Amino acid sequence: MQVFAQFGAGRIGKIHAGNLAAVGGARLKYVIDVNQEAAGDLAKLYGASVTDIETALADKEVTAVLICSPTDTHSNLIERAANAGKAIFCEKPVDLSMDRVNACLETVKKAGVPLMIGFNRRFDPNFAEVKRQIEAGVIGKVEQVIVTSRDPSPPPATYSRSSGGMFRDMTIHDFDMARWLLGEEPVSVFAVGSVLVDPEIGKEGDIDTATVIMTTSSGKQAVISNTRRAAYGYDQRIEVLGEKGMLQAGNKPISTVSASLHDGIVSEKPMPFFLERYADAFKLELATFLKAINEKGALNPSGEDGRKALRLADAANESMASGKPVAV
Amino acid sequence: MQVFAQFGAGRIGKIHAGNLAAVGGARLKYVIDVNQEAAGDLAKLYGASVTDIETALADKEVTAVLICSPTDTHSNLIERAANAGKAIFCEKPVDLSMDRVNACLETVKKAGVPLMIGFNRRFDPNFAEVKRQIEAGVIGKVEQVIVTSRDPSPPPATYSRSSGGMFRDMTIHDFDMARWLLGEEPVSVFAVGSVLVDPEIGKEGDIDTATVIMTTSSGKQAVISNTRRAAYGYDQRIEVLGEKGMLQAGNKPISTVSASLHDGIVSEKPMPFFLERYADAFKLELATFLKAINEKGALNPSGEDGRKALRLADAANESMASGKPVAV
Amino acid sequence: MQVFAQFGAGRIGKIHAGNLAAVGGARLKYVIDVNQEAAGDLAKLYGASVTDIETALADKEVTAVLICSPTDTHSNLIERAANAGKAIFCEKPVDLSMDRVNACLETVKKAGVPLMIGFNRRFDPNFAEVKRQIEAGVIGKVEQVIVTSRDPSPPPATYSRSSGGMFRDMTIHDFDMARWLLGEEPVSVFAVGSVLVDPEIGKEGDIDTATVIMTTSSGKQAVISNTRRAAYGYDQRIEVLGEKGMLQAGNKPISTVSASLHDGIVSEKPMPFFLERYADAFKLELATFLKAINEKGALNPSGEDGRKALRLADAANESMASGKPVAV
Amino acid sequence: MQVFAQFGAGRIGKIHAGNLAAVGGARLKYVIDVNQEAAGDLAKLYGASVTDIETALADKEVTAVLICSPTDTHSNLIERAANAGKAIFCEKPVDLSMDRVNACLETVKKAGVPLMIGFNRRFDPNFAEVKRQIEAGVIGKVEQVIVTSRDPSPPPATYSRSSGGMFRDMTIHDFDMARWLLGEEPVSVFAVGSVLVDPEIGKEGDIDTATVIMTTSSGKQAVISNTRRAAYGYDQRIEVLGEKGMLQAGNKPISTVSASLHDGIVSEKPMPFFLERYADAFKLELATFLKAINEKGALNPSGEDGRKALRLADAANESMASGKPVAV
Repeated sequence: MQVFAQFGAGRIGKIHAGNLAAVGGARLKYVIDVNQEAAGDLAKLYGASVTDIETALADKEVTAVLICSPTDTHSNLIERAANAGKAIFCEKPVDLSMDRVNACLETVKKAGVPLMIGFNRRFDPNFAEVKRQIEAGVIGKVEQVIVTSRDPSPPPATYSRSSGGMFRDMTIHDFDMARWLLGEEPVSVFAVGSVLVDPEIGKEGDIDTATVIMTTSSGKQAVISNTRRAAYGYDQRIEVLGEKGMLQAGNKPISTVSASLHDGIVSEKPMPFFLERYADAFKLELATFLKAINEKGALNPSGEDGRKALRLADAANESMASGKPVAV
Repeated sequence: MQVFAQFGAGRIGKIHAGNLAAVGGARLKYVIDVNQEAAGDLAKLYGASVTDIETALADKEVTAVLICSPTDTHSNLIERAANAGKAIFCEKPVDLSMDRVNACLETVKKAGVPLMIGFNRRFDPNFAEVKRQIEAGVIGKVEQVIVTSRDPSPPPATYSRSSGGMFRDMTIHDFDMARWLLGEEPVSVFAVGSVLVDPEIGKEGDIDTATVIMTTSSGKQAVISNTRRAAYGYDQRIEVLGEKGMLQAGNKPISTVSASLHDGIVSEKPMPFFLERYADAFKLELATFLKAINEKGALNPSGEDGRKALRLADAANESMASGKPVAV
Repeated sequence: MQVFAQFGAGRIGKIHAGNLAAVGGARLKYVIDVNQEAAGDLAKLYGASVTDIETALADKEVTAVLICSPTDTHSNLIERAANAGKAIFCEKPVDLSMDRVNACLETVKKAGVPLMIGFNRRFDPNFAEVKRQIEAGVIGKVEQVIVTSRDPSPPPATYSRSSGGMFRDMTIHDFDMARWLLGEEPVSVFAVGSVLVDPEIGKEGDIDTATVIMTTSSGKQAVISNTRRAAYGYDQRIEVLGEKGMLQAGNKPISTVSASLHDGIVSEKPMPFFLERYADAFKLELATFLKAINEKGALNPSGEDGRKALRLADAANESMASGKPVAV
Repeated sequence: MQVFAQFGAGRIGKIHAGNLAAVGGARLKYVIDVNQEAAGDLAKLYGASVTDIETALADKEVTAVLICSPTDTHSNLIERAANAGKAIFCEKPVDLSMDRVNACLETVKKAGVPLMIGFNRRFDPNFAEVKRQIEAGVIGKVEQVIVTSRDPSPPPATYSRSSGGMFRDMTIHDFDMARWLLGEEPVSVFAVGSVLVDPEIGKEGDIDTATVIMTTSSGKQAVISNTRRAAYGYDQRIEVLGEKGMLQAGNKPISTVSASLHDGIVSEKPMPFFLERYADAFKLELATFLKAINEKGALNPSGEDGRKALRLADAANESMASGKPVAV
């Protein structure tokens, strides 16, 4: 039985707490959040109690922490939890600064604690099946990867200030996905970005529409197609071409219902946003974390995966600024 | 906070217990099963304890029961729980004998306790969306309903003895679905049945392949297509034709992945069987039960829904025996 | 080079004439139609001339006839063409009267000329592929056949007078399809019919919505689902369940385009009606006829196929009248 | 009635001749091909005669020519036909040399004859429907265009010598498609190319796998994804993202049949190659040409469209050579 302290009682925190209750063999002991009311509500729902960081980390019964608080608290909490000897699950990113990420991962390494980064999409049963078929050799050698990743609607323009910009906030998931599917590190990144959705985003120095090409040393090609606004919902698809065929993972529709009407055949839109689209992924992610710490196995995606995805995001920003491909 | 006793710790019992833990606001206090080991394992996983029927029903703290034990225990447990004043959720069917069903429902009525029957498919988000669109008038007046319901593989031939035969065991879900979608009671049932899958099933006096036509007084037509063996998995689809169009709910594939290969485009089969296919339905079913008893609202599907579906199953058996349509 | 006389210059006549021009190796010499203007226009388009029945049949150069004139002229033209020694392609049905059909087929037999009946759907590349896979053993032994056949909108109510009613006019195609796919003759027909679309059709003594169940001696089951009004267009689908799996042929959409919009994913409706849906079928049907008469091979669907489909339609009418299954 | 001379009796020539016969209102008078046997066979099938270039162009009855001979004869035949005052349909490309293209288009302009270039894909009913919906405002302003265009298998490596390389031979269709869908000229082209399919192609200095990004002055982004080998067939898809939604045109499967089997749901591959995939497009292309010359309307795609697509192909080659985006 693993005993958990959870940092963050927001929308993603609720998901993790519910999944922790359902999975069996784990207990949520503490909820910590600056919003005391949110912490209290969540604690009550699952029989936990509200406390502060110090108490939670000092409690020897606590073996693992779930970090789902705001981005700028991640690296600090990781370091403190690492020094307290807890197994750590942390939502992406470790930090927006590469230096800070490096320092943080160094601390984790010294502490010798397990750390898993919440690149939840790897646990999506659809994308995981693509990966499984690649590894099973169904399409032979991978040649092209196309990641389509579009948010349903843009965040407030001012969000760019804290998020680190589109490539580090949003595309970072796609960089991880592309790396994972290519099975080979990109060596070159070329990115174009436009402001087509909200001019205010442009005023903040960010973009809202982007296309990225990456190539690997063996000549594999990857494309990422991003926008902050897809009128039809959260668009999350993958296509992988290999020498023996193509794998595709489509969107997960809200339901399988279609209505054949006078004006056309109307089927359901994709699940509205990440909480719904990746509900299964969050569940499997947590179960994987729990299983790995129970069995003292390796944790993936690792801190290093977090670092590499950030490196690609930084390269995309450089490419966009210079108008040229950037070697990584 | 509702406190539950659960009868049955088998595969469907595990599903309900996990859903009860995740939903929040409910507590599983007791698990009762003749298989003490199964009861113990399940109880441990969710912090409940093992007990016997008497103790569970005598405990005033227990407000609700989940009955997911074998079919032949249902009506007895319903009556005892009703007399103990508990809110009752019971898997289908109440009983295989219409007389016994009538007596049992009478007891529940006298006790004045809420009773919900586990026609889980009504809670499937796909079928529920079909129902929602019908009620929203998307296709106007309903004219034809086609329910395709095929099991992946036949049960042991001897299962016919305890199950009451294909129409009462398997098709009963489809009779409920057809009634629910037609929005009007069938007045005529014509059924044909064949033994095409397993001759042993025929020797037991049962069938494994069936087609049923029902009509309503206003001339609506419903078709049910059943088989005990679909090589491609658990086939659960619905089609409703109305004056303004057609609604269809297709199978839920294991994943959205397709592999485009030299020999064809291979996509995933439907979820293998009911535990997977109706995982969401079981969750929503339980949440609906919990909400209804919390809010003292009406429970659907009701005992009466259970009785009417059984009546149609009995009519199908009569039709098959006589070779003629049967009025109901 | 086969030389053709074509009876009928209406919409289906235009299709055949165009296909005859494109296929190569055939020449349209005469067009015959009581509508002289239509005959003239069509003749001009493809370099043919207008004439009368006698002249066309007396011309020794003419080796084959295409009969696509109104239904009540079919049997007479078949007999005259047979007596003139021409190869005959005739649209369905031979006649609405079984006696007349028998007499006509007798004449053809005596004349020893080839006769092909225009059950065009057998040449639809989708349905033909279903048949091919059945024969290749892909799904093993056939167990259930479901034919969905829905017209986009009802004909004038008075059309029932000349058409012979829904089963003989519309469902006859589906009876042929079911026979072809079952690979075994139905021995029992049970039909229900309703008037749900147009009360005027009911006043003429016809129906507009129907479901038919047929069974074969080995226990195979076939369902036909018909309506005269599908708001979403011409609905022509087939499903065949066998011991090793299921084959489905879906509708052919107007295009493959889908629009993912705020209100749903909108894809194209099926091809509007038979001229579009079966454009490829008409082409392949004619090519098959031409090839068969060039090579003196067997013609399918034959006159006997026409007779058997009519027998099933008559049985459906009897069943509907009596409320009981009819043995055939 | 337009009278045609056709240059080229190869596989695409046969398609055009058959379409010309079926469309009505046109007559094929001459077939010209260095392969006299092919010319003779085709002429016989449609009642034409074989002749030489001079005779065909000197015949005053001939009003239009179809040029479907090898690429290196195109510009010469265009100029001669233009000088003879014929309406001209020519398969792409006009020529591989931009200088030669410019000179040829100048000649056509001086002669004042209509010229249409065979970018057949614009007439594909699926892609045309995408264009129609864009122009109808269904998705609002276009933001991203993704063209997937993959051949089933590579040509002989030596084909690169005469074809002008992948971008000018194959991608040229996609450049035209992207221009047409963007509704705005690309101003920047970045291309990456790899040899992943056949090392021999690399030895000839060509590539077999490519990704191209183009941007327009308003910030629209277009991606082309190419390969010479798609194990699953000829892959021709389009996706257009706009402010109000997304349009997609998928592949056209060989049939709509799917087989649900123990190992998965197997549906049909895309039409094998361009003759099948674009059969409807070729028909509509020719009908459009005929209609335009009959009505003396504008011809599209024009010679200028041919020139602009070639310019993009040349830019892609420059980009690949320099490793940098190229302004156009």
